[in-house]
Amino acid sequence: MVGKRAATPDTDRKTAELTLLRAIRERAAGRSRGGMRLGIGDDCALVSPRPGEELAVTTDLSIAGRHFRLDWHPPEAIGHRALARGLSDLAAMGARPVAAFLSLGLPRGLTTARKGNRSWVDRFFDGLLGLAAKYNVPLAGGDLAESALAVADIVLVGAVPCGRALLRSGARPGHLLYVTGALGGAAAGLSRLATIAKNPSRRSGPLRIAKKMEAQLSAHLYPQPRIDQGLWLQRRGLASAALDLSDGLSTDLAHLCAESGVAAEVDAALLPLQQGATLDQALYGGEDYQLLFAAPPNARVPHTIAGVSITQIGRIVKRSPDRPAMTLLTSQGPQPLEPRGWEHFSGQG
Amino acid sequence: MVGKRAATPDTDRKTAELTLLRAIRERAAGRSRGGMRLGIGDDCALVSPRPGEELAVTTDLSIAGRHFRLDWHPPEAIGHRALARGLSDLAAMGARPVAAFLSLGLPRGLTTARKGNRSWVDRFFDGLLGLAAKYNVPLAGGDLAESALAVADIVLVGAVPCGRALLRSGARPGHLLYVTGALGGAAAGLSRLATIAKNPSRRSGPLRIAKKMEAQLSAHLYPQPRIDQGLWLQRRGLASAALDLSDGLSTDLAHLCAESGVAAEVDAALLPLQQGATLDQALYGGEDYQLLFAAPPNARVPHTIAGVSITQIGRIVKRSPDRPAMTLLTSQGPQPLEPRGWEHFSGQG
Repeated sequence: MVGKRAATPDTDRKTAELTLLRAIRERAAGRSRGGMRLGIGDDCALVSPRPGEELAVTTDLSIAGRHFRLDWHPPEAIGHRALARGLSDLAAMGARPVAAFLSLGLPRGLTTARKGNRSWVDRFFDGLLGLAAKYNVPLAGGDLAESALAVADIVLVGAVPCGRALLRSGARPGHLLYVTGALGGAAAGLSRLATIAKNPSRRSGPLRIAKKMEAQLSAHLYPQPRIDQGLWLQRRGLASAALDLSDGLSTDLAHLCAESGVAAEVDAALLPLQQGATLDQALYGGEDYQLLFAAPPNARVPHTIAGVSITQIGRIVKRSPDRPAMTLLTSQGPQPLEPRGWEHFSGQG
Repeated sequence: MVGKRAATPDTDRKTAELTLLRAIRERAAGRSRGGMRLGIGDDCALVSPRPGEELAVTTDLSIAGRHFRLDWHPPEAIGHRALARGLSDLAAMGARPVAAFLSLGLPRGLTTARKGNRSWVDRFFDGLLGLAAKYNVPLAGGDLAESALAVADIVLVGAVPCGRALLRSGARPGHLLYVTGALGGAAAGLSRLATIAKNPSRRSGPLRIAKKMEAQLSAHLYPQPRIDQGLWLQRRGLASAALDLSDGLSTDLAHLCAESGVAAEVDAALLPLQQGATLDQALYGGEDYQLLFAAPPNARVPHTIAGVSITQIGRIVKRSPDRPAMTLLTSQGPQPLEPRGWEHFSGQG
C-alpha cells in the first residue's frame, strides 16, 4: 500500500504521532532557552551563539540491540544514555550545551500506555529530559516516525569561544595524560546487568532492577557527562588535547595519538579503577564517558575539577617505528597496548 | 553476548565500520567548507556563523519501509532524498546551507560490494554527496552503526541573518498565498513507481528503472529543494510566512494557518499541477518539497524566482468559528479542505 491518504490505520498512526509530538513539545517547552530563539514548531530551530563563539555539533545514533536492549535497560536509562553520549562529546570540546535535537523511530507498542502504566516513550523522556534539565539544555526539535526497530539519534549543539575548543590534535611529546573520575565502571555495571538478565529464575518481560542494585549499575545506566570539567579545561586553556572515553581507553587514546601524531605510555598502576571494575574493563570497556586529556608538564592540573577527581595516568612520547604507538607499563615491564574496539551488543535478545 | 571485545566477528565488524568511515571521510573531505572549521575526525564539528547571523538546525529521520523501500528505490535516490528533506527545511527558513551531518544505521549487506558492483552505501553516497555538491554543503560529521533496519537521520545546519528567518507564524488576513514550481509530481511519480514494482512480469530483486522512465519519476526520486527561492524571499523580506511542502499542501497549509492564527482559501483552478498529476495528488500528496508562502497584497512577487515559477494559489482570511480553517474554492462552489496526513508506506515489501 503506497502513498495512501486518509485511510483509517494511517490516520490513526498519524494522530498517534501528532499526539506524541504535542506531548513532547509541552514537556520540552518548560526548559530554559539560553541561546535558543525558536524551538519545536517551525521548519528549523534557530540557535544564536554569543558574539565571538562558534558552535560545536555532534550526532550519536543509538539502536535497539546494538546500543541498548529493550529487555534489559529501563526506558529512563535509555533516554539518559542517549543524551549523555551527545553531552559527553560537547564536554570533550569544552563547549557549553545550547540545544539538543532528537530523531526517534519507535515501534507503535512503545508509544502507548498499558494497564495504567505510563508508556515506554514517556519513561524514555523522563530519563532524557531529567539529564537535559541538569545541564539546562532545551530539547529544541527533532523528528518522529514509526519504526520496526527502536532507534534514537541525538544531536547536540554547543557553543565555545572561537579557537578555544579542545581538539584531539594538540598533544606533544612530554605532555602528561590525565583522566577524570574512575574507569571501567560502565563495563563492570553492564557485566552485572547481564548476570541479572541471564539468571534462569527470572521471569520473562522487561528486567526489574532493585533500587539497591541501581547504585552498582549506575555507571552503566546513568553515566554523567563531564561538561563542567570540559568547560573548566577550556576556560583555563590547560589541555593540549582532549576527547571523551566512549569506546574504551585503549581505543580512544589511539585516536588522540593518531590525531596528534604522537605515541603514548600508560602506567597500569596509576589507572583509577571504579570499585568492582577490572584493569581490562578500564582499558577496553567503553561508555565510561570520562574525559581523557593531555597537558604540558608545567601545567598546574588540580586533583579535582568541579568535584570530580583528576588522575595522571601516563605521558605522551615521540612516535617512532621502533616501538608501539601505545605502551602499557606494568609490574612485569612494558607491553604493547592494542586498541581493542568496544562493541555494545552483538544481538538483540 | 555482551560488552565483548576483540573476538573475531566484532573486530571484523568494527574494521568494516572504520573502513567505511574512512571512505566517507575521504569522499566528504573534497567538499567546500564555507563556515566549517573542523569536520569529521574530532568529537564535534565546529561551525561558525558570520557576524549577525544565527543558525537554523533541522533533523529528518528516514527509515526503510516507511520513507523508502530498498526493493523500489535506487540507492542514489535514497541518499538524494534524505539530504533533500533537510535542505528543504533550510529553504523554508530562507537559510543558506552551512553543514550536513548524517547518522546512518545499515545492515551489513548494504556496506559490502558484490560481484564487481559498487556497494549499496557507495551508491547512497553518490546521491547524497551529488546533491550536497550542488549546494556547496559539506558533510561535516555524523555517526555510523550496524543495524537490522536501514535508517538515515540527516541533520542540516544553515545560517540566516538574525531576525530574518522565514517563519510559519507571520501570515495575516488579506495576505496572498503562493507556491513555487508544480505540485503533485512526487505523488504521481510514486504511484508510477508502484505500478512498475507490482508488474507481475518483473523479476525479484532490486527494481531496475529505465533511463527514459527516470524523467517521469524524477519529482519523486530526485526532488529539488528550493534553496535559492527561499534565500531570495528572505533577502527581499517579501514573505510574511513560509514552509516547505513535505506532508502535502492541505496538511502544510494547516500548519501555516495554526501557527499564524488565521484561515485560508485555496483556488483549485489556480493550483499548478505537475504534468500527469491529479488535483488530489497536489492537495494530499507529500514530498513535493516546493515552498508555500504568504505575502502582503502590495508585495511585488515575481512570476519566477531563480528560474522556478511562482503561482498565486489563494489567500489568507480571518479565522472564524463560522467557517472551516481551510476552504477549497471549486467550480462547484466552496468546500472545506481537510488536512489529510501524508503517509509514506505502511509496510516494507
